[in-house]
Amino acid sequence: MRLRLDLAYDGTDFHGWAVQPGLRTVQGLLEEALARVLRLDGVAVTCAGRTDTGVHARGQVVHVDVDADAVLRAAGRSAETPSRALLRRLNGVLPPDVRVRSVVEAPDGFDARFSAVWRRYAYRIADRPSLVDPLVRRNVLAWSRPLDLEAMNRAAEALVGEHDFAAFCRRREGATTIRTLLDLSWERDPAGLAVARVRADAFCHTMVRSLVGVMLPVGEGRRPASWAADVLAARVRDPGVTVAQPHGLTLEEVAYPDADGLAARARESRRRRVLAGGVEEPRG
Amino acid sequence: MRLRLDLAYDGTDFHGWAVQPGLRTVQGLLEEALARVLRLDGVAVTCAGRTDTGVHARGQVVHVDVDADAVLRAAGRSAETPSRALLRRLNGVLPPDVRVRSVVEAPDGFDARFSAVWRRYAYRIADRPSLVDPLVRRNVLAWSRPLDLEAMNRAAEALVGEHDFAAFCRRREGATTIRTLLDLSWERDPAGLAVARVRADAFCHTMVRSLVGVMLPVGEGRRPASWAADVLAARVRDPGVTVAQPHGLTLEEVAYPDADGLAARARESRRRRVLAGGVEEPRG
Repeated sequence: MRLRLDLAYDGTDFHGWAVQPGLRTVQGLLEEALARVLRLDGVAVTCAGRTDTGVHARGQVVHVDVDADAVLRAAGRSAETPSRALLRRLNGVLPPDVRVRSVVEAPDGFDARFSAVWRRYAYRIADRPSLVDPLVRRNVLAWSRPLDLEAMNRAAEALVGEHDFAAFCRRREGATTIRTLLDLSWERDPAGLAVARVRADAFCHTMVRSLVGVMLPVGEGRRPASWAADVLAARVRDPGVTVAQPHGLTLEEVAYPDADGLAARARESRRRRVLAGGVEEPRG
Repeated sequence: MRLRLDLAYDGTDFHGWAVQPGLRTVQGLLEEALARVLRLDGVAVTCAGRTDTGVHARGQVVHVDVDADAVLRAAGRSAETPSRALLRRLNGVLPPDVRVRSVVEAPDGFDARFSAVWRRYAYRIADRPSLVDPLVRRNVLAWSRPLDLEAMNRAAEALVGEHDFAAFCRRREGATTIRTLLDLSWERDPAGLAVARVRADAFCHTMVRSLVGVMLPVGEGRRPASWAADVLAARVRDPGVTVAQPHGLTLEEVAYPDADGLAARARESRRRRVLAGGVEEPRG
């Protein structure tokens, strides 16, 4: 059976999502926890958005294929449902900086990576001393100069839509850098923080942080709003763009079609990957 | 001159607000930082709400009396205003878990403790696995059973108003335990967390956490809503009330009268202290 797990994690003390030998990664800890609780030799999970070192998630989605008997065995004689028992036992094994928020049996055709319709990230900035809150210092960037969000939103307008985001992506051989950016906008949250809402069908490596990096000098008035469009049009990495620090970035939400559309969406994602010569894995 | 400093801190790694020899406290670090930046032998600060070990603050208010020359000297030849320069230099010396959010010259008659009209705390609880967010695990209590906020609000109604809160206070010789509880109510925040808003003229020691402690069993259905009124009426510590853990508690805001009312309010607070045989220091 295929399970869908929804996860949240504080990325501060992780070397990102993806397993790397000898390093503390979210995928590594989750696969170990699943193997331990389900008493299996090895478990392989697939996620919706591979986050980099220091990037957080509130809405990470994962699927894993496991034997139904292993799930029932793990639940034991608990009065809870098997998925509820698995949730409780996984959280008992995992450290406090990663939490499983729900476990459900995935609907037919569900694939955490290929069924996803869009991923939404947030980037948070405290751009004056009165906004700096030590309680959220792990996931909010402290910026010493005030930002003009209107100018940043003017810069953002040129980036929304389907474009070749090569200027914002780490180069990979044979991989397309065409993406559809569905939303890119800044607003003040109730506490006064500057928050970017960034939503796309998928992201290439360091794309969100590069998008933020091109808007920061605009927000400070050091670059005109039109600079973002110039960088995009060049289609090569601009050495003037500083990739924003990872800790301000959080994967907030991944959207999927309803049950009927799931398998069709996964087929379509895979087909586009073949036609485009390989889509890079979605990440932040 | 008297300065007003507004502070925020993550109480996790502090032994509370008040200076204790050999222990890491917010007051201790702030007084050290002020002495260092102002090049003074010793500095004594007064706060609005003395928080216990593990309790946080977003809206702590402090006053300190310093020589105006020391402030001008600390600002040096900076192009900033002296208070802005002091803010920047204090934050350069303080660790990241305590931040000064503003420094201003206090208006005449201002006293961070005695001028305060009310203090407002929040207590935050994630009462189901889907609400647990590792990014806020330091200031949100994880509770394994869902809470009925309507029942908790019914219990709270009997507590609002002027009462003798001896049942909710740590006993101190010769100190009154009469307080005016202005607000006590629970609601869900946008993320779904259960949040108590607790506002009073002042609080005695462990009062907020004891109030939360009497409402939790009501929210779980283990006690009737009327239990809170019974505990209050007894006027002695009830061994059935568990003081809630400190890390869910945050001092959010302290309110002061406008400039005209400041000195009058401070005189009134001091007069009531004398009449009542000593008011305990306001705390959480």
